[in-house]
Amino acid sequence: MERAEEFKERRERGNEALLRHADLPLKRFLALDRDVYADGNLSGRTKELLGLVASLVLRCDDCITYHLLQARRHGVRTEELAEAMSVALVVGGSIVIPHVRRAAELLEEEHHGNDTT
Amino acid sequence: MERAEEFKERRERGNEALLRHADLPLKRFLALDRDVYADGNLSGRTKELLGLVASLVLRCDDCITYHLLQARRHGVRTEELAEAMSVALVVGGSIVIPHVRRAAELLEEEHHGNDTT
Amino acid sequence: MERAEEFKERRERGNEALLRHADLPLKRFLALDRDVYADGNLSGRTKELLGLVASLVLRCDDCITYHLLQARRHGVRTEELAEAMSVALVVGGSIVIPHVRRAAELLEEEHHGNDTT
Amino acid sequence: MERAEEFKERRERGNEALLRHADLPLKRFLALDRDVYADGNLSGRTKELLGLVASLVLRCDDCITYHLLQARRHGVRTEELAEAMSVALVVGGSIVIPHVRRAAELLEEEHHGNDTT
Amino acid sequence: MERAEEFKERRERGNEALLRHADLPLKRFLALDRDVYADGNLSGRTKELLGLVASLVLRCDDCITYHLLQARRHGVRTEELAEAMSVALVVGGSIVIPHVRRAAELLEEEHHGNDTT
Amino acid sequence: MERAEEFKERRERGNEALLRHADLPLKRFLALDRDVYADGNLSGRTKELLGLVASLVLRCDDCITYHLLQARRHGVRTEELAEAMSVALVVGGSIVIPHVRRAAELLEEEHHGNDTT
Repeated sequence: MERAEEFKERRERGNEALLRHADLPLKRFLALDRDVYADGNLSGRTKELLGLVASLVLRCDDCITYHLLQARRHGVRTEELAEAMSVALVVGGSIVIPHVRRAAELLEEEHHGNDTT
Repeated sequence: MERAEEFKERRERGNEALLRHADLPLKRFLALDRDVYADGNLSGRTKELLGLVASLVLRCDDCITYHLLQARRHGVRTEELAEAMSVALVVGGSIVIPHVRRAAELLEEEHHGNDTT
Repeated sequence: MERAEEFKERRERGNEALLRHADLPLKRFLALDRDVYADGNLSGRTKELLGLVASLVLRCDDCITYHLLQARRHGVRTEELAEAMSVALVVGGSIVIPHVRRAAELLEEEHHGNDTT
Repeated sequence: MERAEEFKERRERGNEALLRHADLPLKRFLALDRDVYADGNLSGRTKELLGLVASLVLRCDDCITYHLLQARRHGVRTEELAEAMSVALVVGGSIVIPHVRRAAELLEEEHHGNDTT
Repeated sequence: MERAEEFKERRERGNEALLRHADLPLKRFLALDRDVYADGNLSGRTKELLGLVASLVLRCDDCITYHLLQARRHGVRTEELAEAMSVALVVGGSIVIPHVRRAAELLEEEHHGNDTT
Repeated sequence: MERAEEFKERRERGNEALLRHADLPLKRFLALDRDVYADGNLSGRTKELLGLVASLVLRCDDCITYHLLQARRHGVRTEELAEAMSVALVVGGSIVIPHVRRAAELLEEEHHGNDTT
């Protein structure tokens, strides 16, 4: 899962640059962006699916990659991700297609990664 | 739940007008928009939450009302809806606030409706 | 076509308020927004359809109403409008549905208006 | 400034409904949404203009009304608001026009309100 | 037209990955996304222009490239594409500029491609 | 500030391609896009901040880079840019994060550039 590793490093580097310049509200926003996906009345697993679909319809590739990887960490299966993508596609329209294509390719890399392990 | 009833009637009337003019692709889209929320690897219940959050971040009030009512039909609790709204708010930003306000008011009407029954 | 008349009056009143406060760039933008739909290599008729679909996918009701009325002035038929709406729906997704519903209702009012004349 | 009063009441009522159901992240978001406009390296006055233009290009009417009223409280002049609207119009395109129309009408009501005082 | 070829290959590869994971609604959506551009009351040629402008205002580069190439296949001339871009720019604002820049560069590559053939 | 130089060249090249195909409305739009940021009742400096925040919430990377560089030319300090980013983040939500990350990295490159001079 090469693209996933590359993404994580790029994200980490970007976050560090951001935090060197961030004011207090920005730091509070980043903390909130982490805490809102914690287990509660809805499970963290379901919340990651919510974050994924929100990211798909808003067409934010980095956000999609992030929530896809998080969903995997929560054990979300490929068949479940495929259905979440369908909902996003119907709500958000054909402009979401390039993003579900890239999401599908990320899932493929992961499979290949698993094969070689 | 006055606003809910009003919404349903308005939606019904609009759909009838739309279907009188719709070509085949439009009808196929409407069918797809119904079928994508069916039980599958993800439950219809979870899919309605996905549809709700997608509608919130895209700020489509009629879509929000529709998925809120559908979520209720699936037995989603207020505490769960509140957390879905929080995810939508963090992903979509303060421009989502007017929509979660209206969603909260819809939930209130529902409670009052239940009280008087 | 009551809603059409109401729209035209409201739009006129809003434009007057806007022009009382507008600076030069805003006035230039408004002129440009009129001139870009003139006949050229593409006909004004086709450009109004482009404006309509752009307004539908961006979900701007006032813009949709405006371009729908303009398309009618250019003689665009209901069957053509229906197909333009289908394209907008597929590109923009189910969040466009409330807007095509309202557009269809506007077309209905127009028919009733014609019947009674 | 009738519309302004109506807006404030509606907003207040909606916020109360929202807070009755809000979870902690939602409450933290609302606090952040207030604090981010405080005086800092940029003045609160400038930040309200930033919030106004962001709301205009994202086409959130309640947000526009809110930041317009806040900008007034900071003493922003009509000529300055007109130029901020022009920037928003050029960045966001003609779909922003209905919103600057409504903003201009709000400014007019205010003037009439001042006249009668 | 190097970028066009690269795009087609990337798109094909992505579609294959997507179809390996797609559920039925996703497949139906993809079929609909093809069929909606067929000749009807509006020509396929006009529908591709509608798809292009919708893609421009929604700022989806892959969608823009796709519809630009499709429009060419239907014989749409550069002068017509330029006017469609102008409509998109006025409706969608200056944030569309980076996309019309890239579209213009794609047209240039095409010309160079033709020269060397 | 390597990325800044690369951006300027790419932007210049794209603009040249665009102007070779542009019709009159497109040229007028580009002129307007330049003139709207001139000093007026609001300073050009403040207008660039408005353009930056509008670009951030609309998530247009090229626009963000452009207005960031323009803001610097007007002497806007890093602390001020950080606060403008916070406003954009709260208004536009977590989908803006990848863009403020890239903006922060651009500011870092600039510092390094200054160090070596």
